[in-house]
Amino acid sequence: MIKTYVICSGGLDSVTLAYKIAKSDSHELAGLISFDYGQRHKKELDFATHAAKSLGVSHEIIDISAVGTRLCGSALTDAKNIDVPDGHYAQETMKATIVPNRNAIMLTIAYGIAAANNADVVATAVHGGDHFIYPDCRPGFIKAFEEMQNHALEDYADIALYVPFLNKTKADIVAEGARLNVPFSETWSCYKGSDIHCGCCGTCVERREAFDLAGVDDPTVYDNLTYWLEAVKKGAA
Amino acid sequence: MIKTYVICSGGLDSVTLAYKIAKSDSHELAGLISFDYGQRHKKELDFATHAAKSLGVSHEIIDISAVGTRLCGSALTDAKNIDVPDGHYAQETMKATIVPNRNAIMLTIAYGIAAANNADVVATAVHGGDHFIYPDCRPGFIKAFEEMQNHALEDYADIALYVPFLNKTKADIVAEGARLNVPFSETWSCYKGSDIHCGCCGTCVERREAFDLAGVDDPTVYDNLTYWLEAVKKGAA
Repeated sequence: MIKTYVICSGGLDSVTLAYKIAKSDSHELAGLISFDYGQRHKKELDFATHAAKSLGVSHEIIDISAVGTRLCGSALTDAKNIDVPDGHYAQETMKATIVPNRNAIMLTIAYGIAAANNADVVATAVHGGDHFIYPDCRPGFIKAFEEMQNHALEDYADIALYVPFLNKTKADIVAEGARLNVPFSETWSCYKGSDIHCGCCGTCVERREAFDLAGVDDPTVYDNLTYWLEAVKKGAA
Repeated sequence: MIKTYVICSGGLDSVTLAYKIAKSDSHELAGLISFDYGQRHKKELDFATHAAKSLGVSHEIIDISAVGTRLCGSALTDAKNIDVPDGHYAQETMKATIVPNRNAIMLTIAYGIAAANNADVVATAVHGGDHFIYPDCRPGFIKAFEEMQNHALEDYADIALYVPFLNKTKADIVAEGARLNVPFSETWSCYKGSDIHCGCCGTCVERREAFDLAGVDDPTVYDNLTYWLEAVKKGAA
């Protein structure tokens, strides 16, 4: 069995990935790894903890908040000065949600943990919808990252990066999650972290749209039920 | 001027690098970045702070101790279970000092900080003597790392990795430091962290040998003054 760690934020994509690995015949799910990078709210981390419990595996939350607070200038970490933009990811305004190098930092740490625990694979739920604005989620980055790691752990460990959603859409992930019976209502996407999903931020709009495109019932409770349609139209324009 | 951050542990190599950048006509030293990765002793960090003060630049100590404690199994972080080995770096026993992926993790974080602060360069004091045991200090890694970062920060930042000692020996660094008037007695190498350098651990032996090879007076006070000669002979055998 391929001993695999999954980087899990508690969101729809990474929880679906955790279920995919857990139910796979070839992978052994070694545990979930989450990061506290000083994000505005920690709500999503509770959903990652819940997923780990449901799947009966270990869950590590790595505190890198000292790093996150230094990577200022992103709406996801800089609560004081920058608002989370509403709208569709395709819009230019979504660049405010870039935390520079975040994915590269989380992946190198996950690789270190995997190496220290003799694992074979680190799995991440990066998907096609991320490519547009986040450079460290693009296929070229993923390939270069794995090459870098082959050098960094030469003679010491041999760990592959598994990115099964790299060329899939979020709608594909919803469709796969439905087949795997992922409890979607036990995942969190909203950047704002209120009691329920806001329905207006980039990740809420993307979530709602993905269920619609996949033709799967969306069990999520949104504060604003209709904003997503308007935002999708604007994003496509 | 090339806005440059230097990763500085407080050791001889990285303090020399900081002086090299500070005295360069083309670089502007933006600050020193250090990491608290849960190392056995924090003594070296005080020397980095001192170097930043002497050079009149900012100093960031990034706390990633939550990461370090998870990368167990190295003599540098696992104080309870593993002893720091004495001897020469060329010996097989020195593999106990490998912290898996440490350099890759520190470099990705430094790149994030550099990107958030519109810098042009991250400089690291990796040198030829490190290649033998640390895979994430080898030229192949350095090249692959920079390539990975070009992808990770595409459209967002353009940061080069500056590794001027990559193909130099530690003796070359001592010779360059002497030319730059680096206050060598205000740098710390010893892995053990007592009041004075032990003279027996890999990095003490390497330090003492480098001064000898460079023909530069070593101002360091060692607990054991002669062990290094014996260790060098064993390492060469």
